[in-house]
Amino acid sequence: MTEPLDPIAHGGGLCEAIARHGGAPSEWLDLSTGISPFTLPVPEVPDTVWRRLPESAEVRRVGDLAMRYYGGSVRPLAVPGTQAAIQLLPLLRPDAERVAIVSPTYGEYEQSFRRSGIKIERVATLDAAAPNRAPVVVLANPNNPDGRETVRDDVFGFIRSHRDRLVVIDEAFADLRQDLSMVGAAGMEPNLVVMRSFGKFFGLAGLRLGFVFASPAVLGVLADRLGPWAVSGPALAIAGHSFGRKDLVSELRDKIDRAHGQTRSALNMAGVRIVGDTPLFFYCDVGNGERIRDALAAHHVLVRSFDHTPEMVRIGLVPDELSAVRLRETLRLVHARPQ
Amino acid sequence: MTEPLDPIAHGGGLCEAIARHGGAPSEWLDLSTGISPFTLPVPEVPDTVWRRLPESAEVRRVGDLAMRYYGGSVRPLAVPGTQAAIQLLPLLRPDAERVAIVSPTYGEYEQSFRRSGIKIERVATLDAAAPNRAPVVVLANPNNPDGRETVRDDVFGFIRSHRDRLVVIDEAFADLRQDLSMVGAAGMEPNLVVMRSFGKFFGLAGLRLGFVFASPAVLGVLADRLGPWAVSGPALAIAGHSFGRKDLVSELRDKIDRAHGQTRSALNMAGVRIVGDTPLFFYCDVGNGERIRDALAAHHVLVRSFDHTPEMVRIGLVPDELSAVRLRETLRLVHARPQ
Repeated sequence: MTEPLDPIAHGGGLCEAIARHGGAPSEWLDLSTGISPFTLPVPEVPDTVWRRLPESAEVRRVGDLAMRYYGGSVRPLAVPGTQAAIQLLPLLRPDAERVAIVSPTYGEYEQSFRRSGIKIERVATLDAAAPNRAPVVVLANPNNPDGRETVRDDVFGFIRSHRDRLVVIDEAFADLRQDLSMVGAAGMEPNLVVMRSFGKFFGLAGLRLGFVFASPAVLGVLADRLGPWAVSGPALAIAGHSFGRKDLVSELRDKIDRAHGQTRSALNMAGVRIVGDTPLFFYCDVGNGERIRDALAAHHVLVRSFDHTPEMVRIGLVPDELSAVRLRETLRLVHARPQ
Repeated sequence: MTEPLDPIAHGGGLCEAIARHGGAPSEWLDLSTGISPFTLPVPEVPDTVWRRLPESAEVRRVGDLAMRYYGGSVRPLAVPGTQAAIQLLPLLRPDAERVAIVSPTYGEYEQSFRRSGIKIERVATLDAAAPNRAPVVVLANPNNPDGRETVRDDVFGFIRSHRDRLVVIDEAFADLRQDLSMVGAAGMEPNLVVMRSFGKFFGLAGLRLGFVFASPAVLGVLADRLGPWAVSGPALAIAGHSFGRKDLVSELRDKIDRAHGQTRSALNMAGVRIVGDTPLFFYCDVGNGERIRDALAAHHVLVRSFDHTPEMVRIGLVPDELSAVRLRETLRLVHARPQ
């Protein structure tokens, strides 16, 4: 039996923070994830959707809506969270002995490949992965947690000059950055896999839904390994509804834009140095991330620190002006500028 | 890249039946699955459950409730449908070259092991698996589709005399047959894995939820392979609610009992020979299953036929007396008694 790996840390551990620092959930300002604080209103889910197994016709219908929404050229595979697809990536190149991961990034990529005995090679940029001959390359674009962007031409260039290598692009934070997205090329370029997260932008992470755009061969393997009915009926129904509501999507974009501005101002006014960002979070040099995280948590404000970059914290979007003031003032209390 | 297998047939394909035979969904009587036609009322799902990733504390809480509800000795692993666990079974004994499956049964077991290159050996009973030395043995109890039961003492005896073999018991249809259940022994017997389906008895198959009871080593491998947040927040919230509502569960049992009686009467009065049943379906010898299935479908009544036993159909529970009459009369119209 394969030995399981130790689980890795993530944002969102509000229960554990409460166990350590007290307070009721409603008293906490949880900025530890990259999930939108705004939710597209959840429609009434019909009884039959809870009751019945999702039909393949419904899976296809929502896949077609996702294709149009994300600007794809092929129907994507719906997965129960992109995490579920990350778990299966090693199967796409079972003979690969190495994977090049543009790092630091979302930790579950390393975890997944390591589990399959594949050697991890961290590279600083996609360009740096070129001389490295690993048959699989992973890039998050824009990147989590540092917000770094790789322009589309560079991604295209890489894919076209490395046709023998599988290139996985995680676009979990690209909903408001269509200029960076490779979704449209997936399915046309056989060595390209693009993953989109539904829950982050729509503020519905509990739903567990993501979409993978890739060649039929890649999607066939993933679908086969996930098995039938991998995505819940409610997730499909709510995504189908959401993709069609351009008015609500546009409202959501506006709210996220405004919250992004409010969060940036709060950080600036507290003297926090922002070194990167995506539409859904900021990456900040605070000198000692763990210290600042703990000091904020004592005031029931939750942010994320990182082992790989101990000077940094990641701070999600505040939901409103009152929370912006609270973030600013709490940061002012606890934050000594980095030397 | 591993070659994907062709998908296998299942019940529940209402959209395809409509495409072939017409009618609106509401005009169909779908008896093609083993899912309860009654649903425990779905509680309001709080906004935060849709929005946030499920916390590990919540996963543990619902696991503890499931342990008590199913009568387990250990906290089970929540999985996004037992199908997701079936997909991972080959990993529990990666060196196994053969699996003995008490057959015919739910087709996805063969599919999953075959995908991993493991040789399938069909055996007629658990006893018949004894001389066969396959390191993994699968039994559905009661069995789907034929309703065959293996008494608990026989299962216990097998497990204890075959400690070197992994024994997987699928109890998807055991909710009303606690006398058959091995849940209480799972975790104590290191070679035993017991799977329970949430959606069938609770009539909430669209939710995608199941529980696996097994040793910590087995659950560790499954959890590691599923990755974090495998089960959706709404599924956890609704299961947590349902397990606590003894009144509604008891009402559900009564409804299922009554529907079982109504369905049995309808089949008897139509002269259909019942050869097996579970609380949620009947297995009937109709001479030519495919012919009867198609003839019923022309009247917008959907049942399931099988390649492995062409003389049989599986018929789920009717939801009410009116549907019982409709089933009876439609069967009378189309059914010639088997010779």
